[in-house]
Amino acid sequence: MNPTRIKELIVTPIAFRDPPLLNSNGVHEPLALRVILQLVLEDGTVGLGESPGGVARLERLQAAANVVVGMDVFDTTAVAAAIDADLLPTVPSSHERGWTTSAVEVACLDAQGKLLGRPVGDLLGGTVRDAVPFAAYLFYKWAEHPALDGHAAVGDDWGEALDPAGIVEQARLMQQRYGFTSFKLKGGVFPPDEEIAAIKALAEAFPGQPLRLDPNTAWTVETSKYVARELDGVLEYLEDPTKGIEGMAEVAKDAPMPLGTNMCVIAWEHLKPGIEQDAIQVLLTDHHYWGGLRRTRELAAVCEAFGIALSMHSNSHLGISLAAMTHVAAAIPNLDHSCDTHYPWNSADDVIVPGVLELRDGAVKVPTGPGLGVELDHDALERLHRLYLDSGMRSRDDTGYMRRIQPDYELRLPRW
Amino acid sequence: MNPTRIKELIVTPIAFRDPPLLNSNGVHEPLALRVILQLVLEDGTVGLGESPGGVARLERLQAAANVVVGMDVFDTTAVAAAIDADLLPTVPSSHERGWTTSAVEVACLDAQGKLLGRPVGDLLGGTVRDAVPFAAYLFYKWAEHPALDGHAAVGDDWGEALDPAGIVEQARLMQQRYGFTSFKLKGGVFPPDEEIAAIKALAEAFPGQPLRLDPNTAWTVETSKYVARELDGVLEYLEDPTKGIEGMAEVAKDAPMPLGTNMCVIAWEHLKPGIEQDAIQVLLTDHHYWGGLRRTRELAAVCEAFGIALSMHSNSHLGISLAAMTHVAAAIPNLDHSCDTHYPWNSADDVIVPGVLELRDGAVKVPTGPGLGVELDHDALERLHRLYLDSGMRSRDDTGYMRRIQPDYELRLPRW
Repeated sequence: MNPTRIKELIVTPIAFRDPPLLNSNGVHEPLALRVILQLVLEDGTVGLGESPGGVARLERLQAAANVVVGMDVFDTTAVAAAIDADLLPTVPSSHERGWTTSAVEVACLDAQGKLLGRPVGDLLGGTVRDAVPFAAYLFYKWAEHPALDGHAAVGDDWGEALDPAGIVEQARLMQQRYGFTSFKLKGGVFPPDEEIAAIKALAEAFPGQPLRLDPNTAWTVETSKYVARELDGVLEYLEDPTKGIEGMAEVAKDAPMPLGTNMCVIAWEHLKPGIEQDAIQVLLTDHHYWGGLRRTRELAAVCEAFGIALSMHSNSHLGISLAAMTHVAAAIPNLDHSCDTHYPWNSADDVIVPGVLELRDGAVKVPTGPGLGVELDHDALERLHRLYLDSGMRSRDDTGYMRRIQPDYELRLPRW
Repeated sequence: MNPTRIKELIVTPIAFRDPPLLNSNGVHEPLALRVILQLVLEDGTVGLGESPGGVARLERLQAAANVVVGMDVFDTTAVAAAIDADLLPTVPSSHERGWTTSAVEVACLDAQGKLLGRPVGDLLGGTVRDAVPFAAYLFYKWAEHPALDGHAAVGDDWGEALDPAGIVEQARLMQQRYGFTSFKLKGGVFPPDEEIAAIKALAEAFPGQPLRLDPNTAWTVETSKYVARELDGVLEYLEDPTKGIEGMAEVAKDAPMPLGTNMCVIAWEHLKPGIEQDAIQVLLTDHHYWGGLRRTRELAAVCEAFGIALSMHSNSHLGISLAAMTHVAAAIPNLDHSCDTHYPWNSADDVIVPGVLELRDGAVKVPTGPGLGVELDHDALERLHRLYLDSGMRSRDDTGYMRRIQPDYELRLPRW
């Protein structure tokens, strides 16, 4: 028995409840998909990982499970290379391959930390802050998922937010419940002037607190420049107003504030053109696709060398991801902005044993236990896996869901 | 008692024998200076580090010893930041501060590995090769250190090398003794045509084996371009032909081969201008000043993102440094060239217990023991420390030493 050899990678797709959050592609479905990894070593140690779901990513993780068996859990570079080489013939996008290698790397680091009795932050050079600041992630939203297919409508305790007043009210709730002191609005939902008004309302309601707006490439270059001018002095950064490195570079020439992205620079080969063209001034990193926690630290070094500020992206996620995000964010000296997180929208359905991760004063304390410092709740995993199986849902489809409710909805990017 | 808390950093200056190796600044003195670090944790675990010597760097390491006591050995990022902040008021050069933080980081990682029972490579993502290739480091040299100050002349078993035939003979010896299959010539000593002839002689004697030439900025831009043209198709890269990012960029426009550096891009703030101006195509990294082993991996990621090839620089060093160089080089996927090492010139006076590090087939196998995998030879340390004290030597001075032997020697850079 070699205690550090990987015996098995257990890949479990799950579903959990998600509110009707609006974005430039449509609206979040009643369930979000995710995949939970349990990397089992020969000595029985288990490392946890969490990845976005959907059938394609699920199948790639299942393929990775075959690749990693027998490898050493400390050889994370080699493990990632082996998975990458295996996926290469069928998955040409390095960004897409990155989702798979990343999830496995986190599970390896969690297992390493548990073997060594050290928190994951220690494997990244130690943490430089005890708690990681997060931003309130504000969404336009409906009051409820409408009744559909014989299911009753499903409401939540956030209520409706479809105008500036609704967004300010949601921000107040976020602040009351979690103590956030910075705010990000997911835009690209309403005509730009309405979203400008929402940001200005937030600025009035929360003077001096950092604000950002992310329309997910809903705008043309011209519209982006217009919004940027209108929000001069109000936004700390404007995120992905328009599509592509060239478009962003055009906007950046004119915009009075930095531009951020998690859409046009999302793989290592995008860094050179993105930086050379001065398309972005803020990079929202995400360990889920940049190659894991160590690669995220390396990415932070690239940003440091080229004067790119660092923030952090989020998708709908649960606690394993939050723990990983917190460890790596705490280890990076040049974290310049509070991180994004969907956790308040989804934490009720977590797969980890409660008590470790808490959003308080707008921050999460870095877990101090071995590895990621969180423990899998096996009953919750089983329940969410059954929810996945029963749902019949296999891929995220914000646009398709929107069309079922508003049949005339058309996906258009840019829309304005 | 907190087992991971730093109790003491023992800083020991040493001297060891060095042959009369010629370079663009003069000639190596009979003794080279180095500093050995022993980082002692509260539980008695000791981590080793090795740094270049000289009174300034010694004093900075002694200052660092006061800073790190009480800190946690896993907090390498915070340890480096604390040392850096302490030095900042008196040491404006981040490159110079890097020498200090780097040596301490390596000692921390060695201690971590020993605590955890894992080789340092495991703390860097695991090794991707079992052995690291090194290049034979060829020098123009005298047969002996001449008699001086009542000391007799000191010869060595390498003999004289002052022309192409001598360099080829030295290369043959290097190959016989260590199995090297790539060669680097330290140039900048004789007029360029003589060094071109030496490289061409090597190319004839060792067909197909990679060659490089490093005159340490002895040439003007024009001379550099001339040499580059003359050695088209012969060199894998030309290292630091001329001074500064601007000069190198001028040469690079014309040179048919890549240009390498360990002189014009030597700190994080040099990366952006060096890369933007396309001044370098190969970076010779060196964990001794880039911030240690983790920072070297991060630097490798910067190089990967921007298509800069990676090689490794060396100064006169002993086995602790060689072990650290080997671990980090083995952990970096994009190591594109064999590494430099002075070890054959200095290994007779090592401070580590023999048996772990062996240059065979031009490579060093990655040590597999905990930490760096090497053990301090306390008797050797004591002997070399006494040699340092008795020598009265406090700083390296290749030019001053040369002048004592050739009083009309003048330091001129560029010389040609």
